[in-house]
Amino acid sequence: MEINVLLGEFFGTMILVLLGNGVVANCLLGKSKANGSGWMVISSGWAFAVLVGVFVALAFGAPAHINPAVTIGFAVSSGDFSNVLPFVLSQFFGAAFGAFLVYFHFGPHWKETKDEGLILACFSTGPAIRKKGANILSETIATFVLVLGVAAIFDSSGSLAPGLGPFLVAGLVWGIGLSLGGTTGYAVNPARDLAPRIIHAILPIPGKGSSDFGYSLVPVVGPILGGVAAGVFIMLFPVF
Amino acid sequence: MEINVLLGEFFGTMILVLLGNGVVANCLLGKSKANGSGWMVISSGWAFAVLVGVFVALAFGAPAHINPAVTIGFAVSSGDFSNVLPFVLSQFFGAAFGAFLVYFHFGPHWKETKDEGLILACFSTGPAIRKKGANILSETIATFVLVLGVAAIFDSSGSLAPGLGPFLVAGLVWGIGLSLGGTTGYAVNPARDLAPRIIHAILPIPGKGSSDFGYSLVPVVGPILGGVAAGVFIMLFPVF
Amino acid sequence: MEINVLLGEFFGTMILVLLGNGVVANCLLGKSKANGSGWMVISSGWAFAVLVGVFVALAFGAPAHINPAVTIGFAVSSGDFSNVLPFVLSQFFGAAFGAFLVYFHFGPHWKETKDEGLILACFSTGPAIRKKGANILSETIATFVLVLGVAAIFDSSGSLAPGLGPFLVAGLVWGIGLSLGGTTGYAVNPARDLAPRIIHAILPIPGKGSSDFGYSLVPVVGPILGGVAAGVFIMLFPVF
Amino acid sequence: MEINVLLGEFFGTMILVLLGNGVVANCLLGKSKANGSGWMVISSGWAFAVLVGVFVALAFGAPAHINPAVTIGFAVSSGDFSNVLPFVLSQFFGAAFGAFLVYFHFGPHWKETKDEGLILACFSTGPAIRKKGANILSETIATFVLVLGVAAIFDSSGSLAPGLGPFLVAGLVWGIGLSLGGTTGYAVNPARDLAPRIIHAILPIPGKGSSDFGYSLVPVVGPILGGVAAGVFIMLFPVF
Repeated sequence: MEINVLLGEFFGTMILVLLGNGVVANCLLGKSKANGSGWMVISSGWAFAVLVGVFVALAFGAPAHINPAVTIGFAVSSGDFSNVLPFVLSQFFGAAFGAFLVYFHFGPHWKETKDEGLILACFSTGPAIRKKGANILSETIATFVLVLGVAAIFDSSGSLAPGLGPFLVAGLVWGIGLSLGGTTGYAVNPARDLAPRIIHAILPIPGKGSSDFGYSLVPVVGPILGGVAAGVFIMLFPVF
Repeated sequence: MEINVLLGEFFGTMILVLLGNGVVANCLLGKSKANGSGWMVISSGWAFAVLVGVFVALAFGAPAHINPAVTIGFAVSSGDFSNVLPFVLSQFFGAAFGAFLVYFHFGPHWKETKDEGLILACFSTGPAIRKKGANILSETIATFVLVLGVAAIFDSSGSLAPGLGPFLVAGLVWGIGLSLGGTTGYAVNPARDLAPRIIHAILPIPGKGSSDFGYSLVPVVGPILGGVAAGVFIMLFPVF
Repeated sequence: MEINVLLGEFFGTMILVLLGNGVVANCLLGKSKANGSGWMVISSGWAFAVLVGVFVALAFGAPAHINPAVTIGFAVSSGDFSNVLPFVLSQFFGAAFGAFLVYFHFGPHWKETKDEGLILACFSTGPAIRKKGANILSETIATFVLVLGVAAIFDSSGSLAPGLGPFLVAGLVWGIGLSLGGTTGYAVNPARDLAPRIIHAILPIPGKGSSDFGYSLVPVVGPILGGVAAGVFIMLFPVF
Repeated sequence: MEINVLLGEFFGTMILVLLGNGVVANCLLGKSKANGSGWMVISSGWAFAVLVGVFVALAFGAPAHINPAVTIGFAVSSGDFSNVLPFVLSQFFGAAFGAFLVYFHFGPHWKETKDEGLILACFSTGPAIRKKGANILSETIATFVLVLGVAAIFDSSGSLAPGLGPFLVAGLVWGIGLSLGGTTGYAVNPARDLAPRIIHAILPIPGKGSSDFGYSLVPVVGPILGGVAAGVFIMLFPVF
């Protein structure tokens, strides 16, 4: 494996989290011009975060998973697990670095934000209703749709028009956020959630509270289950 | 007909309803993070539901109608009705299964929702003003635009750029929702409406009320009429 | 000229007005589920109205101007005015028929709407601040951008990916509405405004008021001036 | 260098600022039909402003940077600075002319707007929290993402489907606005900010206040730093 491929997963996930957690911060942090913009902005922002992150990763020659759940799902369906560890590590460190950039980008806005929960939301997800079983199920279903959708977009049409694939995946993520995101905040990506949570714990953010590690396994386990389920599905129906 | 084609219509319609009814639930159910997001989120969510559902169906080699009104409309215009029954059944069961997934995805949110009408809206449509004739006419016009639009997208340009077609159809559905959806909630798809309504009647949803079967024929009859009208139109103007 | 080309301009403009005036009605009429949705829905709705209208017109083999200002602008730049009269008439009658369909689609909602201005807005545009000179200038600038943009999209890239052109034009119209529409409601199309205004005058709409013919020349003259200006611009810079 | 290339950068930037500052005016000026529409409209409007501006510039055979930060970034990565001065001047004058058009388009709305800050916002950006260091950092990060994203879109895929590139860049700008724009209003383009600010100072706008030249260096220096940083990045990782 070329180092460039790992750099691609690193920088792609960095951009994903910079723009993705960025849109949450943009909508939630005090005095932001986008404060209170709501779900359309949040879900659109994550869609374009995927678009840009995927293009950056592709530029390095990476497959642009930028998500351990995707990497694991495709490992299950292909039976080749050799990429999993290096990819997941690259994605994890990229997500952490992206969270750092969010912290710097919104510099003076942190101390204008009085709600600890809103600050944490700019790093990692939390449940609308805290019920671990139900929360894991939500993340599993949403991630299943994500990985199945990626497989369908890239396999069904044989040869997509060049450059269209990343936009279609962005549309897929747009749809998942719009439709399924309100229960757990749709992590659907273990790196996107756990790495920024650790950054939240480390950084000296004014007014921050708990990093809520008690919940941290949900957006790791759920997406992995969803990715594995999609991988099994793709294996069972080898039309993909 | 290969079994894969029917599986494609089944799973495509399942994803359509999971994401489509999902966005309604996301906006209406109590404590959802997207609660109250409004029409832009609803109509965008249905558009991407179509995008993903179509790609999943295409991956199985299906024509990706994922809608009996489309199947019937094209049967009328082509004169070949042999696919109608198996397709419609596959779409119907796919829609039912998608409604099950919505129920599980939003698990703890049902009992946080006090309005029976909102709960039913997460399964099937209802009219803004209950007048069966007018409601059927609305559904007929909207479905006519849908089936005519699909025919125009795929026939007018000869060969679309690979992968662009499903996005253009998503744009078509985006437009129908934005522009014509406020009267009846734009079922424009008998399977999408009737199958989830039956699931609503069966499932033990906390706080649910009537499944309003008195209205249930409207979003079946209207879309079929609209599909037939478009099929006749396409037949009359064989430029398509 | 084949009759199909004129039918294409007719049906394309019909769909344009059905979906375009439809989104206004959807947002403004009483008891519509989309009531009060605001500018994002309005401008997005018009964008997809263009998308679908263009595809329907293209299916008939028409050039899909669906707008006299575009037809006139390209006549000026090419020096060939032979198409202008038949095209404009087809577009005009198509727009009128589209307005009829809006009337029927929203049947019971008209009498739930108490403001005469809102009812008229579902047919034709009106100024935010009534000043004919300024209003004509606004329509001229917006239509100049429209016709120049269409020329740039189709000429600059030589060969667009098949099917992408109509979506890019929809994006152009999306942008014009979002950015320039708040002054006069961006008719940018004489047929889209005058024909539905006449339909408004004719139809027995409950609670309707004046059709405001005193303003009706503005959204005819402004768009024609803008189209001519763009035609001259394209002629001056023959890079297009 | 052909004069057409410079005309392309001029007219492309003119359209960028007409539609881009147009959407701000549309949302902020008194009595505009889009008044108060919020961040989704603002960020979508800037995205389509880029789409149209890029197509117009491409029609003239220009590379369609329409942004000095992009021109400088690519000069750094390629080592060829010969285009920088003529391009930047063309972009600057184009932006100034676009600001003039915004002034005329919204003619009677200026005196209906009582807040001097809102009027200035229709010309140039201002910070949500005034802290020059933090503001420059925000502009630097956002512009880094912009220039890196443009490079990734055009280099990673070898040959994009014709016409898709400008839409993908629009998506990139959509994402930057949605996710990172709330701190400084995302100038990310020195010409887009400084030229309209000077126009604001010159024009006899009713009720206007200070042009805030004390801040004017921030949206020049930040974007240049971001462009240079991206240029260095692209040079370091010659996968682009």
